[in-house]
Amino acid sequence: MKHNFGAGPCILPQEVFKEAAEAVLNFDNTGLSILEVSHRSKEFVAVMDEAMDLVKKALNVPQGYSVAFVQGGASLGFLISAMNMMRDTKKAAYINTGTWSSKAIKECKNAGGTPIEIASSEDKNFNYIPKNVNVPSDCDYFHFTSNNTIFGTQFKEFPKSSIPVVCDMSSDIFSREINVADFDIIYAGAQKNLGPAGATLFIVKDEILGKSSVSIPTYLNLKTHVEKESMFNTPPVYSVYVAMLNLRHLLATGGVPAMAKANQAKADLIYGEIDSNPMFEGTTAKEDRSNMNVTFVLTDETHKEEFDKMWNAAGIVGLKGHRSVGGYRASMYNALPISSVQVLVDVMKEFANKYA
Amino acid sequence: MKHNFGAGPCILPQEVFKEAAEAVLNFDNTGLSILEVSHRSKEFVAVMDEAMDLVKKALNVPQGYSVAFVQGGASLGFLISAMNMMRDTKKAAYINTGTWSSKAIKECKNAGGTPIEIASSEDKNFNYIPKNVNVPSDCDYFHFTSNNTIFGTQFKEFPKSSIPVVCDMSSDIFSREINVADFDIIYAGAQKNLGPAGATLFIVKDEILGKSSVSIPTYLNLKTHVEKESMFNTPPVYSVYVAMLNLRHLLATGGVPAMAKANQAKADLIYGEIDSNPMFEGTTAKEDRSNMNVTFVLTDETHKEEFDKMWNAAGIVGLKGHRSVGGYRASMYNALPISSVQVLVDVMKEFANKYA
Repeated sequence: MKHNFGAGPCILPQEVFKEAAEAVLNFDNTGLSILEVSHRSKEFVAVMDEAMDLVKKALNVPQGYSVAFVQGGASLGFLISAMNMMRDTKKAAYINTGTWSSKAIKECKNAGGTPIEIASSEDKNFNYIPKNVNVPSDCDYFHFTSNNTIFGTQFKEFPKSSIPVVCDMSSDIFSREINVADFDIIYAGAQKNLGPAGATLFIVKDEILGKSSVSIPTYLNLKTHVEKESMFNTPPVYSVYVAMLNLRHLLATGGVPAMAKANQAKADLIYGEIDSNPMFEGTTAKEDRSNMNVTFVLTDETHKEEFDKMWNAAGIVGLKGHRSVGGYRASMYNALPISSVQVLVDVMKEFANKYA
Repeated sequence: MKHNFGAGPCILPQEVFKEAAEAVLNFDNTGLSILEVSHRSKEFVAVMDEAMDLVKKALNVPQGYSVAFVQGGASLGFLISAMNMMRDTKKAAYINTGTWSSKAIKECKNAGGTPIEIASSEDKNFNYIPKNVNVPSDCDYFHFTSNNTIFGTQFKEFPKSSIPVVCDMSSDIFSREINVADFDIIYAGAQKNLGPAGATLFIVKDEILGKSSVSIPTYLNLKTHVEKESMFNTPPVYSVYVAMLNLRHLLATGGVPAMAKANQAKADLIYGEIDSNPMFEGTTAKEDRSNMNVTFVLTDETHKEEFDKMWNAAGIVGLKGHRSVGGYRASMYNALPISSVQVLVDVMKEFANKYA
């Protein structure tokens, strides 16, 4: 039994893997593999429609918003969101919480805009979330990254803004309740809590569509994908299919509220251990600790090799920290059961018993 | 038993589906699903490297060329290729063989270029390939679509060009031998002869990289993907994995030369039937007939319903023609066995016996 703490692509429910494997051999009793069906077939059109509908259900997406599946990951999403939100000023306000925000800022420039870094936590290697940020009113939009996978920080409250809000929620969408009406564009690479890599989710306020002040190539225009109901061109069929299966599973097991509760319990368990175990310390400000990506280091590296052997022996995978932070990163996406977190916590306790 | 004549996403070898399904449950004996492994894991890095290497082997890609897997399909490829090939004149020469060429022309404009339609078959609903085209020397590049899936036409010889050549080979790459050295950029959506939807293949002459006269956003710059060996951001993991399996299968069964021979035999079989059967006629100029997508109509619609019942009963799927042409389209990608073509031909014969 493996315990997958990988940062993404990452664990999905085992039931989803089972159904996903079956469909590669026989999709929806068509006698065909999901990999060989036309995206225009009635069977796949039904999948796409259900996937978009389940996103709306799971997040209580209000009237006046559309859902679209696009390709290119958040990395292309940085550009797409900037291009679609350019208005008169071509200025945009960004909070920089590291790596992904920095990349988003770069693509704002590539979209012809002037990004303004209104706050940053770079002074402390992005180990906290800037607070009390004053979002200026003279920009076209405000952008932030809800959760930083690398540094293990997460916005617990979202900044207030009088201008349109764009959020990259790649690594914590569907992990907690959000009020979609507070946002103009939400985007997220699928490969954390949604599904396999290869699809990018956009949730878009319809009224922002078609109002950009810059010329947008067809594929990068969200209007294209909304109007064509995510079928402008061949979509990433399998990624959307598995996302649909995963969303069905999410809704059948209590939806986002149940998931948020489970994620909090997992976070309490591991952060509790980090704070009480003398061998470990967290790397981020306590109040900004991510419930998705838990970053920690050894207080003393003497027995690092022994610790690494212990968690490896326990079937834990994906625990190595990102090179920007070092140490360890326990990613605990929706599908990771608390029993896996308990296995890690038990290893941490045993490690302290042996070497503290 | 189904006979999948779908235009794409389309049939892949049954052996590939079997391996692809197994990996969703246990990838490479990791005890993890291919859908949950990190794209930075050594196991998946090996997959990506092998996939790129097998593309080179299968097409005898010469030194000085790179292979990259990107996302967004040919629809984003239209823009990417144009942006990367813009030079001093910003003019580009396009042959318009329908739909896909038209879309490529549009994205050349969106890239800031001036597309020049140097030849077109629009006068006859794109039912032929323009011949003896004189490619001007005062453009930045020349673009054409090697095979048109909708109208069922295919370049049998490629136009001579003194300027850099860009080709959208989405629907016939790996179906016949090509001389990669004749091209500067080849691109192709994966979902015909390569693998599942969600990946786009680029084969790029290294010396064209970084020389564009327009500013290119990061994701759209081929230099990004070549330098990062298709790992600039999370790639479409599963699509690349299955493409790798399919390329292994291709090379193990004789490679592109064997495939070209098999494809010619399938084409001879069905076009032979179309030409000898009084109930059917082809819709394209004979010399331009695609070996991938065979378009034909009934000479008399009286017994259309009976014909449709007959092929449905034989287990044939995906035969309906595109709305732009009507009638029927038998797509015969690499993985479609000649036995499936024989089933269709037998139905056509039986139909003529009953109703001619």
